[in-house]
Formats: sequence, structure tokens, C-alpha cells
Amino acid sequence: MSVISVGIVGGTGYTGVELLRILLRHPNAEVKVLTSRTENGRRVDDMFPSLRGHTDLQYSDLNLDELKKCDVVFFATPHGVAMKHAEELVAANTKVIDLAADFRLQDLAQFEKWYGLDHACPDLLKDSVYGLSELNRDKIKQANVIGNPGCYPTTVQLGLAPVLKADALVKPESIIIDAKSGVSGAGRKASLGMIYSENADNFKAYGVAGHRHHPEIVEALENISGQKGVFNEILFVPHLVPMIRGMLSTIYIDLTDAGAEADLQALYEQFYANEQFVDVMPAGSSPETRSVRGANQLRIALYKPQPKKLVILAAQDNLVKGAAGQAVQNMNLMFSFAEEAGLQGIGLLP
Amino acid sequence: MSVISVGIVGGTGYTGVELLRILLRHPNAEVKVLTSRTENGRRVDDMFPSLRGHTDLQYSDLNLDELKKCDVVFFATPHGVAMKHAEELVAANTKVIDLAADFRLQDLAQFEKWYGLDHACPDLLKDSVYGLSELNRDKIKQANVIGNPGCYPTTVQLGLAPVLKADALVKPESIIIDAKSGVSGAGRKASLGMIYSENADNFKAYGVAGHRHHPEIVEALENISGQKGVFNEILFVPHLVPMIRGMLSTIYIDLTDAGAEADLQALYEQFYANEQFVDVMPAGSSPETRSVRGANQLRIALYKPQPKKLVILAAQDNLVKGAAGQAVQNMNLMFSFAEEAGLQGIGLLP
Amino acid sequence: MSVISVGIVGGTGYTGVELLRILLRHPNAEVKVLTSRTENGRRVDDMFPSLRGHTDLQYSDLNLDELKKCDVVFFATPHGVAMKHAEELVAANTKVIDLAADFRLQDLAQFEKWYGLDHACPDLLKDSVYGLSELNRDKIKQANVIGNPGCYPTTVQLGLAPVLKADALVKPESIIIDAKSGVSGAGRKASLGMIYSENADNFKAYGVAGHRHHPEIVEALENISGQKGVFNEILFVPHLVPMIRGMLSTIYIDLTDAGAEADLQALYEQFYANEQFVDVMPAGSSPETRSVRGANQLRIALYKPQPKKLVILAAQDNLVKGAAGQAVQNMNLMFSFAEEAGLQGIGLLP
Amino acid sequence: MSVISVGIVGGTGYTGVELLRILLRHPNAEVKVLTSRTENGRRVDDMFPSLRGHTDLQYSDLNLDELKKCDVVFFATPHGVAMKHAEELVAANTKVIDLAADFRLQDLAQFEKWYGLDHACPDLLKDSVYGLSELNRDKIKQANVIGNPGCYPTTVQLGLAPVLKADALVKPESIIIDAKSGVSGAGRKASLGMIYSENADNFKAYGVAGHRHHPEIVEALENISGQKGVFNEILFVPHLVPMIRGMLSTIYIDLTDAGAEADLQALYEQFYANEQFVDVMPAGSSPETRSVRGANQLRIALYKPQPKKLVILAAQDNLVKGAAGQAVQNMNLMFSFAEEAGLQGIGLLP
Repeated sequence: MSVISVGIVGGTGYTGVELLRILLRHPNAEVKVLTSRTENGRRVDDMFPSLRGHTDLQYSDLNLDELKKCDVVFFATPHGVAMKHAEELVAANTKVIDLAADFRLQDLAQFEKWYGLDHACPDLLKDSVYGLSELNRDKIKQANVIGNPGCYPTTVQLGLAPVLKADALVKPESIIIDAKSGVSGAGRKASLGMIYSENADNFKAYGVAGHRHHPEIVEALENISGQKGVFNEILFVPHLVPMIRGMLSTIYIDLTDAGAEADLQALYEQFYANEQFVDVMPAGSSPETRSVRGANQLRIALYKPQPKKLVILAAQDNLVKGAAGQAVQNMNLMFSFAEEAGLQGIGLLP
Repeated sequence: MSVISVGIVGGTGYTGVELLRILLRHPNAEVKVLTSRTENGRRVDDMFPSLRGHTDLQYSDLNLDELKKCDVVFFATPHGVAMKHAEELVAANTKVIDLAADFRLQDLAQFEKWYGLDHACPDLLKDSVYGLSELNRDKIKQANVIGNPGCYPTTVQLGLAPVLKADALVKPESIIIDAKSGVSGAGRKASLGMIYSENADNFKAYGVAGHRHHPEIVEALENISGQKGVFNEILFVPHLVPMIRGMLSTIYIDLTDAGAEADLQALYEQFYANEQFVDVMPAGSSPETRSVRGANQLRIALYKPQPKKLVILAAQDNLVKGAAGQAVQNMNLMFSFAEEAGLQGIGLLP
Repeated sequence: MSVISVGIVGGTGYTGVELLRILLRHPNAEVKVLTSRTENGRRVDDMFPSLRGHTDLQYSDLNLDELKKCDVVFFATPHGVAMKHAEELVAANTKVIDLAADFRLQDLAQFEKWYGLDHACPDLLKDSVYGLSELNRDKIKQANVIGNPGCYPTTVQLGLAPVLKADALVKPESIIIDAKSGVSGAGRKASLGMIYSENADNFKAYGVAGHRHHPEIVEALENISGQKGVFNEILFVPHLVPMIRGMLSTIYIDLTDAGAEADLQALYEQFYANEQFVDVMPAGSSPETRSVRGANQLRIALYKPQPKKLVILAAQDNLVKGAAGQAVQNMNLMFSFAEEAGLQGIGLLP
Repeated sequence: MSVISVGIVGGTGYTGVELLRILLRHPNAEVKVLTSRTENGRRVDDMFPSLRGHTDLQYSDLNLDELKKCDVVFFATPHGVAMKHAEELVAANTKVIDLAADFRLQDLAQFEKWYGLDHACPDLLKDSVYGLSELNRDKIKQANVIGNPGCYPTTVQLGLAPVLKADALVKPESIIIDAKSGVSGAGRKASLGMIYSENADNFKAYGVAGHRHHPEIVEALENISGQKGVFNEILFVPHLVPMIRGMLSTIYIDLTDAGAEADLQALYEQFYANEQFVDVMPAGSSPETRSVRGANQLRIALYKPQPKKLVILAAQDNLVKGAAGQAVQNMNLMFSFAEEAGLQGIGLLP
């Protein structure tokens, strides 16, 4: 069984430690390099005692020569880091999977508007692949650079793909996404807004006037549906839930006459029949976030509370299928490993 | 200062103890009778130690003669209890405030469909008043029987009243209510679905196929707007948040051309200018449930993320403005007390 | 009814906003000055929307001339601030209540060891009074400067005072305090260790090797018992509970023969018979922190699981009886107001 | 690689679903039978959607003939069930692992006192082995019936074994165990005391006057130390933490002169040097429960805040090392599988 060398840039955040949780038990991968701007020389299990007994890895400063020895490098960094190093890594035959936004948006104007950055490698961006594993599997297999999707956009795309790829079942401009996320989605950062006493026993919306995942969703839905320009007015309102992990998007969409008559439950079940990480639940179900806690799984349920209105519920663990798990799923595709390698853990319930 | 005698039927649930928390500090009310089917003779502060030092009340069996001596009786009971006793109490000149659903719906067919009960006093129902304090103030002042609104419907009505009462600003059939509630909304009941380990660190939708508050919302919006039949297809999807108290409704609605041009922020501020328990927050705000924890307050914020789409955020404490607080507010109106009497507590933050 | 002018220095932390929650509803106090190093000119209800509708106060820079116009100034600041300004305020006839540690320890060496600060006004320190309201009531009434007790020490002193003041019932050197606090006790600070995802669904001890409240507890128990030197080896181990507010100390102590024979339940009930803010619960009770959530109350229960071992459970809200509530209680004493003025709110349960 | 057949009696509780989470990914085990008194015919993944995609198992009524075909049967049932069937299973050459208390206490009087049951098979009890894997490994390998330890006793035994097995380092009668558990330890039962709104944002002690794990701890410590009668007066006070999983015991013990001089950190590290599921953390560490969330791991840290007093912190996931994980560890020993088979999952942090 082949084993590849893996580097992780930015190993002190939640996606970094989640990558480690998965990769340290992965049969085909060995993490060789783990970088941090601030923790050079420190053992990672000193910072994250959950890893004690599983690894002797230490953080090192970012050293491109060391990273180039890896077969693949994950960037679990803030936006703007991966794009600085991706060209040099790809030139050295090292594949790149960026968990930030550098390779998510093909529209450079949108990228610069929402992330405040000039793109460092627009040519490489064109060759990069958007890593929504189930929808772009063939391209991912050939890719050198992956832009791993945002957590919210993953739920929206997998939640909507079956009806958007079908012919004229829905009115695309009617889409409303009321999304809810656990607090870990905001990362591991010292900020007042994230402290326990500001978030526990509390619920609120945020980013109502505009959120970075909105343009990503629009671009992705255009690609899925092949329809340009019809998604610009969709609404996306994220909310913050007092829980660590978990994300649920409640998606509302108007059906056409054809959509109202279609058997959408069957459509979804068929669409995802061969997907082990997307679960279309039986009619009447309600996917709970705890049912995917720690698992690389997205669960979907459908409702038609009115004849021409469809409600789609899509739940995932934001750190797994919404981030590190999907990144490893993409790695598995890129290196022709079993797609489920390292990703078969069962969700932690209760 | 006049002081009235108060009875509470059903004092072992969360609305019951919340009524006590408010009424035991109310300058114009004295709780004389507190009933329970199961706890006859037990001190209430034995069951709820938060009340130790504030009352010597004991639970008694329901005794109508005792209740008739009260000026007002609150029913903090399951659906179907208040309607059995209301006529006799009213005949004895005792006012009735029901916190359950017996006097919420004028449409008997809907009541029987959703609550599975024949109504025990349809005539009295006709004379009863729906106790949304801000919208029905004048009628409440004259009422003998109040149907205290459901928690979700309170957020929806106060959230929508300004635009629905204005002329042709919105498309009423487009309303989507994505609502979120803390767990206390489900009451104090021994049921598997409500235990800690099933709800903590979890998020889910429920009642997507149909919820009892849907017909209440439809009837109430018809009354507010004066438009019959246009709200039947609105969507209402409640979700369960891992917090004790708190409720946020995110309401989506399509604007007409007139609505798109109107200054809705000003409209709302004006509409609620004299309301001390409804707070229209400044543009750009996001009402957090913790900002109303324990307070008889509903906070609203408005967004127009698209020119013709309005997003309304409405937050309250489900046990206060969504239940016991509003009930006391109605009592204050019925007895011509200061509307804020007993209700001026500041929310507990953090 | 007399009304005094109040200043609060440091109004952006949790004790600051809790002081406001209490004082804005206090019949004898009006907050005139509210300072912040960073928020000059900002409305306090913009930072804490729970206060919307209750105040128009704005933050100002610390200005001693303004503070001197107040009858009393609360310092809800980090350690080391109050001692810089206390002398000047007292000279201007303004009383000072410090919620930090500047006036808690008479032993200057201990203060400098644990807080790393030279004391700025050791003479004033000698004249200051340690503000454990129930135990030092007479001195507090005469005081110009109050050192408001730490949250943990409050539970320990009130939990132990009855047996320590009695003659030879316990072996003082055997005391073990296993204490647990909600996260708000650590304040409102942007630090990694305090963020939601690091504290939710988690439990741990901290400060096991040494905690600042240890010397305060030792000094206080010496004063209570009149015995010097016998408490140096007591153990104090604090733990962090995933809840916002609340503190429970479980105190273990060996009884002497006399203690084993004494009726300790009666002793405690008698000791606190006239105290409205200390509640000795019936034998067999277990004080829950939620029973005091938001209330200025400490509840105690006693157990003798072995003939010569006493277990004392003492619960309070760390922000109320453990901080802001006790500070206001002290203010009431200092100005001869009713001791319960502003402090009669009932705990928020659930 | 050999694969054994496994039965689980009582598959609707938290230890049952945790056994499934572990065993469905175990290389040497296949769950063939899963019983429930109430859910006969229902798919287990309908009740626990976290298992969707991992199993087609259905619940069946308890049928001894089916269970006898298994190599091992786990009882994840209330106390009193396993003892009724164990003899017949053992006679059929099926091993039994009881996760309840039927085979924990050799002292029948204590069993009957604390569990209110006559023991159904006292002879088999004598042959059964107490399944604290690290301490009784050799006997477990030979056992037909295992009494899987209680969650609290596991932390206490592993926390104390090194000093109790050493000669005269501690004063055994001085032991105080202040223990804290997440709510899942109380099981999956519909009871008022366990509902979300009664436990969230709350902390309390329980069972102070006596807890079933006290006699188990006493008997176990006698066996570990070889000293009878010296542990009868130890204190054990459990507390309930608002978290789902996790348990921390803070253990206080007086050292002898020899103990005060010994290098206890080295003693512990040596004692557990070859144990992969017991982690002695470096001096100064504080084991957090989240560091073992979902992992079969117990972490220990030691403190000597006073020369002759030892504080031991021992953290585990109550459902894993405290229940299902240790049960599988015992199964691995009984069938000569790798002890870590199925148990290498890394804790879920955050």
C-alpha cells in the first residue's frame, strides 16, 4: 500500500488539528512537515493533548524546501498564504490543497472585493480545481491545486445540485439560504466576539449585509446549473449556534410546475446513490448536526410544505465535510486512494 | 396602590415558575393560589429553590372556589385546561389569562385539527381577546379572557406588523419564517427527546411538515393586515437551539416596488416609537437572544440585502415576552396598572 | 428617599455591566459617570444591547474631577487601578469600592508576590475594610474604602464562618476547597484560552499549583477564626465549568470530637438566621448554581458523610454575590440604605 | 485475522450505541445480535442516524438461543439483567461482559444494599473478573464473565494504583474524591432531572449522602492495595457538569513522610510506561476532558501543592474508557486480539 508524504502549513488552528486527527490514522499518508509561524520547535501534542500518544511531530517554521519534498501540502492558513507558495510547490511536483479561499473564486474581482487581496497567481488559479469532491471528482483527480470549498457553500451545493442539474424544476432566483454554524467555524483566534461568555446560551445572525461565502455560492451554483446570472439575488443569512461543531443550512426554493410534479425524493436518492459521504435521509427525517459530529458526512432531507415550495435541510460537521475531511477526500482522489481512506470514522453521538 | 389577588393554575412548568418570578416582585399583584395536579401541599420553593426567601406559597389542588376569589387567574397548563374552567371563573368576575392555546384561534376547525380537542366554550372564545399586547391594547383592556399568544407567533406578528399595516409594501404570500428557539420552549416534561445529551452541542429543524403555531400565525397576520387568504402558503420552519431561553425569527419577505422605495427603518421606528417592550435597533444591528434574557423585550432589526427583499430579525426570551412576561403585560392592561409594572428587569448579560 | 451619585471606572467588563444592571434599577443610586480606556464617547447600550431602553449613559475617559463629584466610585478594573486614585477620591469625600484585589490583602508581601505590584497607598490600605458584607457589616458601615472580596473567597468564608467562629469544632489545617466556576469569572478579555470552542463541553482544573485567591482565603479565615498560622496548608483547587455564571465550592474539613457531636445544621441556620442573602438549605439539599443565577444570594448545604468529616456546599453567582451584587450590598451599608435595595431580583431559573 | 461474533443486549442506551460506534469499525468483531425490549424490528440507524451507512442491524427481542451463537455478549442494560442470563451463556461457551453492576462487587451484602437486588448467580460472581483492564489484565484474559467497572471507579483506581501499590507512601484513610461527570453518565432515560433546561448552564453536587460507586471504589482499592478496612471512611462526592461526555476526578490524599520524599511523577510514569490507554502527563499539566472526547484514554496529572498532600487529576470520557471502550479493551484481552484493536481513534478536539 503506497504511502505519501504530507505537509501541513498552519497547524495551530482548528482545521489544522482536524487534518492531523484524520491523517495520523490514514493508511496512505504520513505527515512529515507541520508548520507554524509562532510555535517553531514545540510538539504539537503539547498544544493539542488529544494527540498525545499518536505523534511526535513538532512545529517548524515554513520552509519551502522541506515542503517541496512532500507529495501534497495542505494550507490550513488564513486567506492569502497558499497563493504565495503554490506555484513554487507545483513546479516541484508537490500538489496543493488550500483550505482557505485563495483558489475558490475564479472571478478575480470578487476575490479582491471580499478578501481585500490581489491574487498572487491568477494563471495557476485558472488551472486550479474547486474541490467539491462529489461534483468535480474527475477534475480533482487531475488537479495540482485544489481550492477546498467553504463550509457553508458545501452544504448549499450538495443540497441543491440534484434540482439544479435537472431541467427547469426550480426558480433559481428564489433561493434563500438560512444557514447556522457552530462557533468553531470562526477558527481558533483570540477575539472578544468569540469568547465563551459571549456565545454560550445565545443565538444571533451575522453577516446579514454580506458574507464572503455569498460570491462563492453564486459562482458555484452557476457552474453546477450552467446558468449564469440567475443567482445574483439569492439570499444567504448565516447564524451562530452555541455549539462547537456542526452546520445546518435550511434552503428555501420555489418550484416550477414541473418541479411541483416531480418526485424530488427519488431524484435526490438517485443522484447520490453511489456517494458514501452524502446521505439522503428518508422522507420526514430531520438531519441533526450531532449525527455527523466528527464524521465526513453530509445528510440531506427534503420537504414540500407547500405544493410549489421546496425546503432542503443539509447538515454536516463544518470541520470535517466542511473543511478537513473534504480536503482529505480530495487528496484521496488526487492520489487514487480509496475515496473513503481515513474517513470512515462514525460520528460521535451522543 | 391597588393590589389584586392572583391565581396560577399549573405552577410546576417553566411558564408557571416564570410567572412567579415576575409576579412575586410585582407592586400590584399578590399570588394567592398556586395549583398543581401532583404537588398538593408542597412548597413551591422546594421544587424551585430560586424562589427560596421570596415566598411561602404551597401548591394546592385545583379548587374553583378558591380561584374565584382571585381577580385574575393565569393558566400555565397544557392545552385544554383553561377552556374547561373559564366560563365559571368569568361568571364569578374573575378574569382569565390562558398561556396555552385554548383562546388563541378563532377558527374552531383549525383548533380541533391541530390540538385534537373540541372546544369547550366556543361562545366565550368569541368574546376572548388575543393578547398580543402592542397590537390589541384597547381590546385587552376590556377583556375578561385573554388567549396569550404563542412564542413564535409573537415574534412574527411584532416583526411584520409595521409593513403589513402599511399599504402594499410587501407581497404577503412570499413570507418565509425561519425560526429558532431555545429548549425551554418545549416545557418541563420528562421526555427522551428533551434530555441534555440529546440537545446539547446539536442543532436541528423540527415540525417542518407542520407546526401548531402555523395556523395561529396565519390567523393573526390576517387580522393585522385585514387581508384574508393571502397567508395560507407562508412557510414556517422552527429549529431547536442548544440554549435554555431565547428565540430568534429570521423572516424573509418580497417587497413590492413601493416597498423597495420606502424607508422601512423609519417606518418601524415610528410604528414602535411609544412601545417600551419593542426595540427597533439601529440599521446594521443584529439582535442577540442574550440581550433579552429574562427581559420582557423584543428586539427587531431590518435588512435589505437585495433591493426587493426584506429580512427581519426578531429576538425575544421565549419565556418572557413570548409567554409569562406578555401575560403579565396583559394583566397590567386589564387592570389599568402601569404597563411596565413588574416588567422592568434588565436582561441578564452575560 | 435619598439618591446618591455613582461613578463606575471600567465599564466594559462583566462586573461593570453587572453593576449597571443592578444600579440602573436601584432606588437610591444614579450612575453619573462611566469610564473606559477605549470607548470614550460610545453609548454603553451600543456595547451591551441588554441595556437599551434603560440608560443613555456614555463612556468617558477617566477624569478624577468628575469622579470626585460622585458619592461613591466603583472600580471594576484590573488589579492596580483603584489604588492609584483612591487617596485622592477619599480626600474629596468620595467613597471607593474596589472590585479588584487592591484592598483585599493586608499582607503587602502577599499582595506583591501574587499580583506583581507595589502597593500605591499602604496607609489607606490599613484603613480600608474587607467587604464581606455579612461578616464585617459594622466596619463596612464606617468605611471609606472597601476591598470587595474575590468570588471564590466569598464562598469559602460564608461556607466556613459558622464552624470557624464556634469553639474547636473543626481542624482548621485539614480544609480542602474544591471549587468550580463558570467562565465569566475570567472576565471579558480576548484570549485564546477563553474562546467558546476551547471551553464548551469541557471540564478541567486550573491554577492547581497556586491561585491568587489562596492568600486571600488564608488571611480571611485567620480573621474570621482569630487563629493565625493554622490555615497555611489548606488546599484550594479551582476548576472551570462550561457555563457562563455560577460558582460552587465543595469544602471538606475534619471535625473534632466536639464537632462530630454538634448539631451543625442548627448552628448554621442560627448563624445566618437574620441574613437575607445567605440561605442555609434544609439537610439533604444540594445547592444548584442556577438557583442563584442573577441573584445576590449564596446557598449552603451541609453533609456529614462520615462521623468526623464535614462537607460544605456553597453556591453563588460569581458576578453577583461574588462581585457586583456584594459590592452594591456594601454600598447600601455604607450609605445606610436598606441592605437589600436593588438586590431583590429573583434568580433566573430555568 | 480472526473475527468473532458479538451480541449486544440493550442497544438503545448510550453505552449501547457507543459499543456499536467502536465495534462496527473493529477489525476482529462483527455484531450479529442487538436486542431491545421496545424496538424489536427497528433499524438501529433509524434510532441513531450517526450509524447510517455503517450498518444494517435491526433490534431484536432478547433471544438466548441467538445470543448463545455469539462468542461474546455485552450487556449494556440496567443493573440486574446480565446476572439472569450469564450462567446459561457461559454454559454455552459464550463469554459475558456486563457494563452494569452485576459483577462489580464481590460483597453480596453491599450489592444488595446499594442495588436492591438479590444476586441471581453468586457462584458465577465468584468466578467473574473485575474488568479494570490495566490492573487485572492476566485474570481478564482467562475470564468468562467480566464486570466492567463503573466510570467513576475507573478514574479512582487508575489515579491511585501507583501510590497504593507502593509501600506506605500515602495515608489511605485520608482519600477524598471530588468527582465531576458529564450528563451522559446518567444514561438515556426520560426523566425530568435530566432534561436540557435543568442541566445546561448549571452545576451541582449529587449523591453526597451516598453513591453506588462508593462501595465499588472501597472494594477495588482494597484489592489494589491489599489492605482491608482502611478505605471505609474515604469521601466520594460526585458533581454534574453541563457537558455531554467527560469525567474528571480530583483526588486528595495525605502523604506519609516517605511519600513526601518520593518522586511520585517518576513513580507514575514508570507504572504506566507500557500502557497505551493511560497517559501520565508532564508535571504542571491539567488534563482536560475534551482531550479524551471519544477516545479510550485516561489522562493523569499530579500536584503536590503542600509537602505532604498529593492532588491527582484523572480525566476520561465516561462512555469510552469509563464504559464501552474499556469493555472492548477487555474483549480484546479475552480473545487475544491486539489490545488496541478498534480503540485507536483520536479524541475529537475541539
